[in-house]
Amino acid sequence: MPTIMNVLFRAATAFAMAIALAAAVPAAAQQAPARAKVVLQVSDADAGKWNLALNNARNLQADLGAANVDIEIVAYGPGIGMLKADSTVGNRVDEAVGSGVKVLACENTMRGQKLTHADMLPKVGYVPAGIVEIMQKQQQGWAYIRP
Amino acid sequence: MPTIMNVLFRAATAFAMAIALAAAVPAAAQQAPARAKVVLQVSDADAGKWNLALNNARNLQADLGAANVDIEIVAYGPGIGMLKADSTVGNRVDEAVGSGVKVLACENTMRGQKLTHADMLPKVGYVPAGIVEIMQKQQQGWAYIRP
Amino acid sequence: MPTIMNVLFRAATAFAMAIALAAAVPAAAQQAPARAKVVLQVSDADAGKWNLALNNARNLQADLGAANVDIEIVAYGPGIGMLKADSTVGNRVDEAVGSGVKVLACENTMRGQKLTHADMLPKVGYVPAGIVEIMQKQQQGWAYIRP
Repeated sequence: MPTIMNVLFRAATAFAMAIALAAAVPAAAQQAPARAKVVLQVSDADAGKWNLALNNARNLQADLGAANVDIEIVAYGPGIGMLKADSTVGNRVDEAVGSGVKVLACENTMRGQKLTHADMLPKVGYVPAGIVEIMQKQQQGWAYIRP
Repeated sequence: MPTIMNVLFRAATAFAMAIALAAAVPAAAQQAPARAKVVLQVSDADAGKWNLALNNARNLQADLGAANVDIEIVAYGPGIGMLKADSTVGNRVDEAVGSGVKVLACENTMRGQKLTHADMLPKVGYVPAGIVEIMQKQQQGWAYIRP
Repeated sequence: MPTIMNVLFRAATAFAMAIALAAAVPAAAQQAPARAKVVLQVSDADAGKWNLALNNARNLQADLGAANVDIEIVAYGPGIGMLKADSTVGNRVDEAVGSGVKVLACENTMRGQKLTHADMLPKVGYVPAGIVEIMQKQQQGWAYIRP
């Protein structure tokens, strides 16, 4: 009988769509468990803050495992001195880079202070604008720490 | 034959719903590319920090285009002096407002310091509580910078 | 006539699924209105900052209602002094805890400074690593304030 086939087919279709809805909507609604990602801001001309940022990075790696957390340190404005070749924390910056931390200098700040890449610690990276980097990382779901 | 009409109609319906699901669910799951939005906090009685916040706003506008980024500067607590009529950065605050930055004074702080609107720079705006503004903006997806 | 029943039943099913889609997808796409949640960082050895963090917590409770906002104060690094038994703001910390604020000391920092729980204010709580707590809270949707 076509009518029974009809009813069975319709029921199966409705059931499949309900399953699809039930599967798809929670997947969209629930947050995926976030990978640990954090951007640390250094904007003070203060070696105490530079060391604190480096301690923060080290403690994050120690507690979570260095492979399980993405860490960026962004130095800009009065904080740029942390990444100059004569920085008092140069050795610690090298160690941080070696352990997987991205350490980034703001080229806007460098231009304002007439600094070139040759004036900076050899292992640091660069961003055109530290403030834009910090904003964008947050809008991409990174946590933000201002030591 | 009604049965063939039936089957065709049913198939078309199922197809349409599948398309709707395929279109709708990814739209829900994927993040819309976030518009650049950032709230800058000023809570220090330190003209260096006031200038740094204003530099940050200007650099964000220069790099992203003033039309492409929403910027709020919220001054509260010891930072309220930035927005008083006798502020050393009054001209720069006016310029920032003129360029589209919202500059907001905390009325909670003003009450505590017996300041009225007449004591403040003429172009600033107001929020009842700076701390609530900063919290809510973050929970609405704004990035947060504490210079 | 089975065909008319068919058509009616099919139309009703399609209508119901359309309603379900219309209801379910926006629910997934739109953000649930976020409960107010904020983590306040104290990382300066500066009683002015300690008082500012406590003022921030009090103002958040006053403006939103203490029952409507979750507040954590996390003290770490040079800020740990805020929570030592001899803290100059000990009374205010007790009041904050009494009003529902979670006040948490970083055990990493305590270990580095050879402090035990007996050295701390009796009502504070503890986290293994303040920096991890602050990062995780942000990634869970809490706002972050660094007074």
